[in-house]
Amino acid sequence: MTPPLFGTIAIIGIGLIGSSIARAAAKNRLYGSCRLYDAEQAVRDQAQTLRLGEVTETLEAAVTGADCVIICTPVGVLGEVTEACAPYLQPGAILTDVGSVKAKASDAMAAHLPEGVHLVPGHPIAGTERSGPEAGFETLFEDRWCILTPRAGTPEAVTGQVAAFWEGMGSRVEVMDAARHDLVLAITSHLPHLIAFNIVATAEDLEQVTEGEVVKYSAGGFRDFTRIAASDPTMWRDVFLHNKEAVLETLGRFTEDLAALQRAIRWEDGDMLHQVFTRARGIRRSIVEAGQDTDAPNFGRDGSDPIKR
Amino acid sequence: MTPPLFGTIAIIGIGLIGSSIARAAAKNRLYGSCRLYDAEQAVRDQAQTLRLGEVTETLEAAVTGADCVIICTPVGVLGEVTEACAPYLQPGAILTDVGSVKAKASDAMAAHLPEGVHLVPGHPIAGTERSGPEAGFETLFEDRWCILTPRAGTPEAVTGQVAAFWEGMGSRVEVMDAARHDLVLAITSHLPHLIAFNIVATAEDLEQVTEGEVVKYSAGGFRDFTRIAASDPTMWRDVFLHNKEAVLETLGRFTEDLAALQRAIRWEDGDMLHQVFTRARGIRRSIVEAGQDTDAPNFGRDGSDPIKR
Repeated sequence: MTPPLFGTIAIIGIGLIGSSIARAAAKNRLYGSCRLYDAEQAVRDQAQTLRLGEVTETLEAAVTGADCVIICTPVGVLGEVTEACAPYLQPGAILTDVGSVKAKASDAMAAHLPEGVHLVPGHPIAGTERSGPEAGFETLFEDRWCILTPRAGTPEAVTGQVAAFWEGMGSRVEVMDAARHDLVLAITSHLPHLIAFNIVATAEDLEQVTEGEVVKYSAGGFRDFTRIAASDPTMWRDVFLHNKEAVLETLGRFTEDLAALQRAIRWEDGDMLHQVFTRARGIRRSIVEAGQDTDAPNFGRDGSDPIKR
Repeated sequence: MTPPLFGTIAIIGIGLIGSSIARAAAKNRLYGSCRLYDAEQAVRDQAQTLRLGEVTETLEAAVTGADCVIICTPVGVLGEVTEACAPYLQPGAILTDVGSVKAKASDAMAAHLPEGVHLVPGHPIAGTERSGPEAGFETLFEDRWCILTPRAGTPEAVTGQVAAFWEGMGSRVEVMDAARHDLVLAITSHLPHLIAFNIVATAEDLEQVTEGEVVKYSAGGFRDFTRIAASDPTMWRDVFLHNKEAVLETLGRFTEDLAALQRAIRWEDGDMLHQVFTRARGIRRSIVEAGQDTDAPNFGRDGSDPIKR
């Protein structure tokens, strides 16, 4: 039997992602031992009950002697958590994270990195709208992409070890520049969330339509947006504050395109509308073919999955 | 055994909705006989193969002698289809439709309504992103709402018969004013679709990010939007052209709210962002509690449904 990839891993922050890593890494035997720490006592207690690994009472106890430390906190505190970990990180250890923003957040981590410790920032493109240790599950990363944005000068073997860890949990790994990551994710993740949060707020504020009516008739399309809008508010606040430039850039494009559609509706330009609406089918098909979404209509909800009919 | 609700029904337009009505009404024994007609030969052939009922070669053959005629075409042709049906509609017959817009579209139908025929416009708030007779299924309307917007002067018993038809297919029925319907649906359905179509177009037009990257990393949120953006372009073009005022009104609100979020990002107002993002969780919970969406994370896609884990 081959030895596990890492002797000891430490997971800091035991939410949806942290707890899913604990489960997936256990299932795939990627570590010798796993320690977990969360700043909140209640979360530590939950992690204990769920038997996710050795839950420690201090950050020091989790990090000391760990071969790989994975910070799974909101992006906004990555710098200070790294600072708090720094005194206990051993030379040769690997520090990584799962944050949705890379350039600015990784700089904040790098600022506190002790000599001899390797920083390999990471971002699994996976999740659900749920939060907390009970929301995690061991198959979350299967067939999903994980992007690594290693710092300049990081030995390839080190990046390779982190890549092997994610591949061991079923992910496909891509290495890219942090700035490029932030631009790509601005359109594939950050802007969709912003728009979803926004339409929910617009609907709630309409005086002419009650919230009860919005809820009742949400199957017309609105309900799809409420799922991602139910995601963790703190995590998402931090995302927008740390990826400001790329989000504002893509948001500007979105608004411009929306103004063009608005004009087409006002002037009843049916051809323009039909043309824009037709384009969308191709990309949906590509996403399904790439294994990034289910082929079942309505996402396979309820009775709409032909297999379950 | 009680006799069926209608002796003969005629379904005009055999797409997702028309074919689902044929299936659901058959399953629930709501008619004595069912005739179907579609302007496209290929669609008629498919309906024949699927054994959805008696597929006729002409509109006349479908409508003549029918007790209830259900027009299931895009909203834009409701007026002309009604005109074409008019010579064959018998006195006392009920004419209804399933269009996503009511006020303007029902006026277009009423303009061609023969003396003695009752018009009870309807709209089932149900569907998937698929189109065509093969996309339909018999449980599509179960636990979904159907809105009826009867014309002034319609006998209550007639509206009641159409309501009973939808209830017979498992729907819950609400009667409301056509203008109110159009306003409520503008926010719960039309605006969400417009935004989804738009973000897909924005993503495709970004020069800095390839379509391949958008597809690969779509699980970050983007893929949710592509589902409704894959809906039928002709149907949706007609919706926006026929519900112009209400869509422009709600779109104006949406754009205003989005500008406020944009400003909060630019000026790094984390509190404002957090506040807006927090509000969305309540409405998601209400939608799930009202039975209008699944409680499973990620809509229960793949391995994310805890029941299937």
